[in-house]
Amino acid sequence: MNSLQKRILTDGTVLPGNILKVDSFLNHQIDTGLLRDMGADFYELFKDKNINKILTIEASGIAIACYTAEHFNVPVVFAKKGNHKNVGNDVYTAEVFSFTKGTSYDVTVSKRYINKGDRVLVIDDFLANGQAVLGLKKIIEDAGAELCGAGIAITKCFQKGEQMLIDAGIDVKSLAAIESMEDCVIKFRE
Amino acid sequence: MNSLQKRILTDGTVLPGNILKVDSFLNHQIDTGLLRDMGADFYELFKDKNINKILTIEASGIAIACYTAEHFNVPVVFAKKGNHKNVGNDVYTAEVFSFTKGTSYDVTVSKRYINKGDRVLVIDDFLANGQAVLGLKKIIEDAGAELCGAGIAITKCFQKGEQMLIDAGIDVKSLAAIESMEDCVIKFRE
Repeated sequence: MNSLQKRILTDGTVLPGNILKVDSFLNHQIDTGLLRDMGADFYELFKDKNINKILTIEASGIAIACYTAEHFNVPVVFAKKGNHKNVGNDVYTAEVFSFTKGTSYDVTVSKRYINKGDRVLVIDDFLANGQAVLGLKKIIEDAGAELCGAGIAITKCFQKGEQMLIDAGIDVKSLAAIESMEDCVIKFRE
Repeated sequence: MNSLQKRILTDGTVLPGNILKVDSFLNHQIDTGLLRDMGADFYELFKDKNINKILTIEASGIAIACYTAEHFNVPVVFAKKGNHKNVGNDVYTAEVFSFTKGTSYDVTVSKRYINKGDRVLVIDDFLANGQAVLGLKKIIEDAGAELCGAGIAITKCFQKGEQMLIDAGIDVKSLAAIESMEDCVIKFRE
């Protein structure tokens, strides 16, 4: 069992509606020691892929992406949500539907920071319906770069996103793949 | 001259309207090596303050806050913008006016992560009008905690925020205090 899985069992809480709260250590309060372990774990999973860039989406993915990028010795790029004045007009954009909020939002990346030939690893905190990663995939492909993998902290295997990404040809790997949370008991996939 | 100042001179660009673009290394693409240096520099500035928590606002402040928090060996908390379903109702909230966008937005922090007696260092990427830090100050005080300092990556000294924070009794320290950007020439304060 890795550091994230252990931490989910000790400090994660399950709320009705299959909501897993990890905001005491991952996406509101952050334990940087845990993130350091997670970065090392992601590196082990993708170190043979010749990654030269890490791409994530603001906000919760940023810190995880940074601690992963250090092992690869490559820059992080974080896609911005919505229209940002200071990003400029020269951007790649994708529309992402959020099932949580029931609305769509745009993610944008400046054309300067994803280039043809880049070998990109996407990092994100949660995978449920897969829409965010599919949006980033479109941006990477629009840039003529290659999506070499998606490293996810927590995957809800009982939602459809993981299979959608696999069907789209993406190499998806998760640090904590949760098979079920019935009766508030968290079961990881073997 | 510290690492951030050097990097601003080599890779920062000035646009009309006193806009400083640092998105190639700080707030869109991120150079984690630079952030590591910045974290060490912030620690030197505030190490005598008995800090036990770092508070920032999503999204650009998160990575800087994490690399700073490691030196203090304390957790990071990032305030969320807008209303977030998964944060819960038990939150401290402050309204922040954005001069850039001409509108206000809410910042929220769960009551679980700022506690009475906490000694909090606020970290943020830019200081211009000071509204974000004042919003965080309100949240810290609502929690019965103490704002022990504000560590800012880049301060635009020619805007009114820095003085407002000083007038509010905040110990503000910046890694790069920019006195002027006239004719696209960046001048740091001595």
